[in-house]
Amino acid sequence: MTTQSSRTHQAKVYFKKHDVTTILSEGDTLLEAANRSEIGISAICGGKGLCAKCRVAVLDGEENLDQVSSIERISLSDDDLRRGYRLACCARMKREGTVVVDVPPESSVEHQRLLVAGVQTSVPLNPAVKKYVFHLTPATLQHIQSDAEILQRAATQEMNRENLTFSYHALSELPPAIRTGNWVVTATIYANEEIIRVQPGDCGRVPYGLAVDIGSTKLAAYLMSLNEGKVVATASCSNPQITFGDDIISRISYAGNSDNLKKLQGVVVAAVNKLLSEVCRSATIPTTEVYEIVAVGNTAMHHLFLGIDPKYIALAPYPPAIRTAITLRADEIGLHANRSAYVYLLPIVAGFVGGDALADVLATKIYESEKPCLLIDVGTNTEIVLGDRHRLMSCSCASGPALEGGCVTHGMRAETGAIERVYINPQDLEPGYQTIGDAAPRGICGSGILDVVSSLLQCKLVDQKGKLNPTAQTPRIRTKNNSIEYVLVWGKDSVTRTDIVVNQYDIQQIQLAKAAIYAGASILKKHMHINDSDIATVYLAGAFGTYVDPQSALTVGMYPDVTLSRIRFVGNAAGSGARMALLSTEIREKAEQVAKQLEYLELAADKGFSDEFMNALFLPHRDPARFPTVNQLLERRNQLVG
Amino acid sequence: MTTQSSRTHQAKVYFKKHDVTTILSEGDTLLEAANRSEIGISAICGGKGLCAKCRVAVLDGEENLDQVSSIERISLSDDDLRRGYRLACCARMKREGTVVVDVPPESSVEHQRLLVAGVQTSVPLNPAVKKYVFHLTPATLQHIQSDAEILQRAATQEMNRENLTFSYHALSELPPAIRTGNWVVTATIYANEEIIRVQPGDCGRVPYGLAVDIGSTKLAAYLMSLNEGKVVATASCSNPQITFGDDIISRISYAGNSDNLKKLQGVVVAAVNKLLSEVCRSATIPTTEVYEIVAVGNTAMHHLFLGIDPKYIALAPYPPAIRTAITLRADEIGLHANRSAYVYLLPIVAGFVGGDALADVLATKIYESEKPCLLIDVGTNTEIVLGDRHRLMSCSCASGPALEGGCVTHGMRAETGAIERVYINPQDLEPGYQTIGDAAPRGICGSGILDVVSSLLQCKLVDQKGKLNPTAQTPRIRTKNNSIEYVLVWGKDSVTRTDIVVNQYDIQQIQLAKAAIYAGASILKKHMHINDSDIATVYLAGAFGTYVDPQSALTVGMYPDVTLSRIRFVGNAAGSGARMALLSTEIREKAEQVAKQLEYLELAADKGFSDEFMNALFLPHRDPARFPTVNQLLERRNQLVG
Repeated sequence: MTTQSSRTHQAKVYFKKHDVTTILSEGDTLLEAANRSEIGISAICGGKGLCAKCRVAVLDGEENLDQVSSIERISLSDDDLRRGYRLACCARMKREGTVVVDVPPESSVEHQRLLVAGVQTSVPLNPAVKKYVFHLTPATLQHIQSDAEILQRAATQEMNRENLTFSYHALSELPPAIRTGNWVVTATIYANEEIIRVQPGDCGRVPYGLAVDIGSTKLAAYLMSLNEGKVVATASCSNPQITFGDDIISRISYAGNSDNLKKLQGVVVAAVNKLLSEVCRSATIPTTEVYEIVAVGNTAMHHLFLGIDPKYIALAPYPPAIRTAITLRADEIGLHANRSAYVYLLPIVAGFVGGDALADVLATKIYESEKPCLLIDVGTNTEIVLGDRHRLMSCSCASGPALEGGCVTHGMRAETGAIERVYINPQDLEPGYQTIGDAAPRGICGSGILDVVSSLLQCKLVDQKGKLNPTAQTPRIRTKNNSIEYVLVWGKDSVTRTDIVVNQYDIQQIQLAKAAIYAGASILKKHMHINDSDIATVYLAGAFGTYVDPQSALTVGMYPDVTLSRIRFVGNAAGSGARMALLSTEIREKAEQVAKQLEYLELAADKGFSDEFMNALFLPHRDPARFPTVNQLLERRNQLVG
Repeated sequence: MTTQSSRTHQAKVYFKKHDVTTILSEGDTLLEAANRSEIGISAICGGKGLCAKCRVAVLDGEENLDQVSSIERISLSDDDLRRGYRLACCARMKREGTVVVDVPPESSVEHQRLLVAGVQTSVPLNPAVKKYVFHLTPATLQHIQSDAEILQRAATQEMNRENLTFSYHALSELPPAIRTGNWVVTATIYANEEIIRVQPGDCGRVPYGLAVDIGSTKLAAYLMSLNEGKVVATASCSNPQITFGDDIISRISYAGNSDNLKKLQGVVVAAVNKLLSEVCRSATIPTTEVYEIVAVGNTAMHHLFLGIDPKYIALAPYPPAIRTAITLRADEIGLHANRSAYVYLLPIVAGFVGGDALADVLATKIYESEKPCLLIDVGTNTEIVLGDRHRLMSCSCASGPALEGGCVTHGMRAETGAIERVYINPQDLEPGYQTIGDAAPRGICGSGILDVVSSLLQCKLVDQKGKLNPTAQTPRIRTKNNSIEYVLVWGKDSVTRTDIVVNQYDIQQIQLAKAAIYAGASILKKHMHINDSDIATVYLAGAFGTYVDPQSALTVGMYPDVTLSRIRFVGNAAGSGARMALLSTEIREKAEQVAKQLEYLELAADKGFSDEFMNALFLPHRDPARFPTVNQLLERRNQLVG
């Protein structure tokens, strides 16, 4: 007997990433196939082929699908069509056979998982911490040796390393461990140099480490078995510093007196300790089995984690206290891993380009790229890196909180109930939306606002300057408190029972944010003499980067007009970089090398920045020639707009 | 007008070490001169020329003194006479002129000061900790640099050292210090490698350090200015571990469970913290100005200070946990110096030859000696080192507590009221004695007991086997509880109102102690093929070594029969070695080198030891030929004995 999914003469869809095969009937859409297998695909317009949020890549068997429809030709870009993208709601099985489909992250409703997971870049395993089991030869009266010498000699024989030192605690563990273990001990060794733990007997060879991404908003922790390089447990939580200031600048300001500085350090260290306990509990290991913590964060988070006053990174010329990587004992800052555990913090590039941006560079390996790549880690502060294996340049721009849902009338963080995907039907100007967790809407997160602005532009509800059209033929456009607004959700449908709107001020916030990012990238391009067409890949990193619809971001003009196929989502690349550094001392060397080579451009010191910024406030740009594919899309959309 | 002391035509004594000149009349003795200037010289027999405790060296002007008396010829050895020694109570001024006199430590009643001071060996100054004042160049927008890089660059220019690292605390001090100091900072640098403190402005170049001798009985601390190499304050206290066990073995036994181990570590660390506060208070500096603590102690004290269970050093083959020098952060063991301060512990040679013995070797520099030297650090456990620049060998012998006043009927530590010098008049068999602090007698300390045994032997009140003579013609010899005893102090004169006696058992304890030391030295001599006549110098170290009368020790046969002129008191040489190591990293390198070269001989594993020990139980030895000068002395004394 064969299983249902393996029978021949059937119509089947194989979702590659999910490794799931779904049987369907002729005439069924790919969206129906996905729903049947509980693979969440965005479909905001209700499967009408209008919102284009359900884009999927057909990798194989396209001949078993019907032809690309006229609506798909309007909704998809030329590049999408060339690459075999279809709208899942439009593509129907026309006969038996198998279609192999990939659901890109921006079309998936499960993308939140990516935030913690990030991109997986494999590295050759060479962690700083290793465990060895040694069989020892007792000293005799004729040949006096200390316990340390006996262990050192065994290490020399087994590892070919001489003069290993001992941590304070390992030394005190040594004499009883040797006797309890009857001259067999397990030694945990750091950097092939220092014995940091001695346990009696053969305790196995699995040391653990923790990679931590200290985001301004969120902390993500990954417990890894260092000898296998596997993530064995993950956990995340909000950054508790939020209580003392939503954004970096307000936290820096709060840290102005030393008690507050200690408080900010204390809460984040306590949170990391809690995450550590949590992952250890779920992996059923004691926290004493964790011997190293690798942490990344932006420069302010880095300084606060270490209890260094970050005041000066907010004042020109924005100098960080230190830029090189830092290694210190975990207990020096109150982290409760093994008593001899170390903390490693990735290097910093500048006051506003921190270890997180460097981790992005590590995770994307753009330092190895033959062709120029553009890396954008979107946040309240957006770090941008441009370049290739020959040269890398970075800058930081104040993109503000709008893209993370802050400082926007009904903005909220990407939490349950946040509208994260929006589509406005160009014909009736009615919206469709998708919320996180499919909950009733409570507000709009950054990706949702970007979708709204993009949709409003495509529906001609806003003009190139970002002005809402007060005369539009829809009750959803209205004037309130002297401001025009578009009603996304009527009060009857919202959790708060009030209308959820996007107003002129909100659109302006998005314009400011995207203009800062675009102008930053433009200045880097100018300094590096790189054109849009030279850019092989645009990497979008950060929580926002994961959620965002790349087409929407492109439509409003957030980054250079490259074809969507060159966009890569790398999710929480900072976390990925931290994990890589935890697993490989070579990656750390690489990080320190890249940090030295990575040039930093202070945008405030560039004369051209202000003009670039002003021009980039337009949607997508004052100069339409800079956004040829967006113009094509807008023209095609005009066919649908009444 | 001239001062009294500078007038000519006068009889004057210049006490060189004290730098004091005393006027005296013709016919006055040197003892009277000393008394007049309040220079304490032992004179137990009341100035009768019998006890020979008031030996002084006449360095110049001996022609102004009367001739050596017949009593001096009996009381002083040939060697003493050859070197111009006189008895202060006998030597009288015979005319005007100046006599230059040196009071050897064993004749001085002020010798207790030496316990803290120890021998002063000058070392080329090169401490691990130095302070520098740097004038910094601020970063600019065009040339981004971290604060660390700016300081590092200044250090490279001034010190020619690249890539200085920062301690955790120094890093957090850096950004505010730079701005508060208006781009002038004082950096404290450890080992030319790590910046451990950054202070705003020019704070001077004086770092402080603490040298600590952790004795089983006593702790001695020396606060030193590291750029001048001066001791600026000293303090000492009892080792509080005494509460948990008088001797090492009982403390090791108490440390058997981890709570007790922590307690033993805790009390000694607390005591060092208290000494640290005390010396800082007296030097009016904050404890944060102390950047390094160098500690020495025997292996058990070393282990307990670090919280390492010392159990195994009491079990064959007596392995210490580690033998190399240890450097760790002071706060790792709870020491409250500067937050980034380090602790350095001298290397260890074996389970019973610790860093204190090594410090003795450093202080005496016997590792540089062309001719063989014998170093004896007397304690409950006596460490012996024999050798020269070519080869050094060490051993340890269980000399027991008798020489420190322990396990003796009326024994006590060398504290106020302890009888420390004893002389028995060979004619009437009546004793004279001197107590510490000139207080009424409470008991006898080690040097006193040794004097008693030596005196009893010289008066023929004990025989060569150590047996008290029950038929002696004095009421002071009596039998009580089946044991013969000599009454040193009648109850009416003692604090306790009971007779203070030395009995057969006490004499046996001294025999056991001195036999162990003598036998240990003999075995070393045998292994090194060194004869008594080859030995250039015998160094006596340790508290007991300072108090002891070298003639008494020689008379009972504690060390080989070398002329007294070859005996050197080096007092608390362990403390001296610690101070030297604090002032000089070269000395530390030397210490580590010497520790590797210094061979260790386990007496328990030597077949000849037991015979040597048995023969050495005799007073001075079973073989009289081994102690020719002692035999001469005993023969001369026979002239006085009735």
